[in-house]
Amino acid sequence: MLELYSYYRSTASYRVRIALELKKIPYLYKSVSELRKGKPEFTIKYQKINPQKLVPTLIDGEAVITQSLAIVEYLEECYPQPALLPSDIFARAYTRQIALLIACDIHPLNIMRVRKYLTEPIGLNQAEKMNWYHHWLGEGLNALENILDNSRFCSNFCYGDTPTIADVFLVPQVYNAERFKYPLEPYPHIRRIYEICMTHPAFIAAQPHLQPDIVEYNPEDEY
Amino acid sequence: MLELYSYYRSTASYRVRIALELKKIPYLYKSVSELRKGKPEFTIKYQKINPQKLVPTLIDGEAVITQSLAIVEYLEECYPQPALLPSDIFARAYTRQIALLIACDIHPLNIMRVRKYLTEPIGLNQAEKMNWYHHWLGEGLNALENILDNSRFCSNFCYGDTPTIADVFLVPQVYNAERFKYPLEPYPHIRRIYEICMTHPAFIAAQPHLQPDIVEYNPEDEY
Repeated sequence: MLELYSYYRSTASYRVRIALELKKIPYLYKSVSELRKGKPEFTIKYQKINPQKLVPTLIDGEAVITQSLAIVEYLEECYPQPALLPSDIFARAYTRQIALLIACDIHPLNIMRVRKYLTEPIGLNQAEKMNWYHHWLGEGLNALENILDNSRFCSNFCYGDTPTIADVFLVPQVYNAERFKYPLEPYPHIRRIYEICMTHPAFIAAQPHLQPDIVEYNPEDEY
Repeated sequence: MLELYSYYRSTASYRVRIALELKKIPYLYKSVSELRKGKPEFTIKYQKINPQKLVPTLIDGEAVITQSLAIVEYLEECYPQPALLPSDIFARAYTRQIALLIACDIHPLNIMRVRKYLTEPIGLNQAEKMNWYHHWLGEGLNALENILDNSRFCSNFCYGDTPTIADVFLVPQVYNAERFKYPLEPYPHIRRIYEICMTHPAFIAAQPHLQPDIVEYNPEDEY
């Protein structure tokens, strides 16, 4: 059985969980909550699996795969149905473009390791960190809303009427935006697609609060 | 003919130029140097093509594609030979993983728009910005060197003895590391692969200093 190293609130893990649920692939959930607590024995062991010490990591027999988009593309190639990429080549590029806008131009600037670095050594306070977070999120979501608004592909989902990798990446980012109190009123397409996704059993099952390591939740670790 | 909106020193444009050269696809080079000078008429026009106002953008007839990895995957699907992805599914994931480690976990933290934001409003000085740059580059390159060192796939190139998307992403990042005076001694695999790539005609032709908009070069704009 596939094994997924995950953490309930990890945005990148959330993406892979959605893809696994959409394709109805059973998997064993392996939490890295011990990594986040800084337990050295776990860190040493996990670093051999994932030298970046980040999540997610997918284990499929001898194959060890990191980077959420590489994992989703791998799942698409191993388990083609239901397809998370359209068949048309330009449409495939369009869905990848949306996934990458989120994966490259929003998320990396706002993840925990960057927020920690902004605290120490940079010395930003909570409000300044929130400004940073909202700034990069806004830059990305403004462009994404514009792309959706101008695309002939956009419908109930980012592409047409079934989920693709674009939605797989969009939903965890919107979850994060809500968690960090970013106002979503100016984004009608993004909000509509998010709301439709959240009525879909696969997106529902992948949600952070339904993961087994939610018991590790610590409100002091919020931002 | 394909059109590529590029800027000679843009890391992400450099990746796409390498892929186009490897596949021997002729293209029209469209510089966005006017965007960088902040000319509003160009910005308004370009923003309709690329709402993120970033480069690269590929135009193929009616298809407009942004995000360098989405463009490279599109080229791979339209022009399969020479292949930039291995045929084995796990090996494909391995090469995508390397491309994404660079595209998501190094580059977005170190691009010009972030360096500008660190100057104003954050208020970092030149040395502090360089520390930031080197910190994230080091985190990424340490993990990448480890991945290459432990992979049965790594040979003259990141995968085997012909270039893949992993090398397409690696070379512009090493170019950037040199430009920002990051010491590469601790990375023998990365250095070896980079040196081999730089003897390959496609990688040579795609280099920043050989692009038509190099005339726009301004040393004061260095970092």
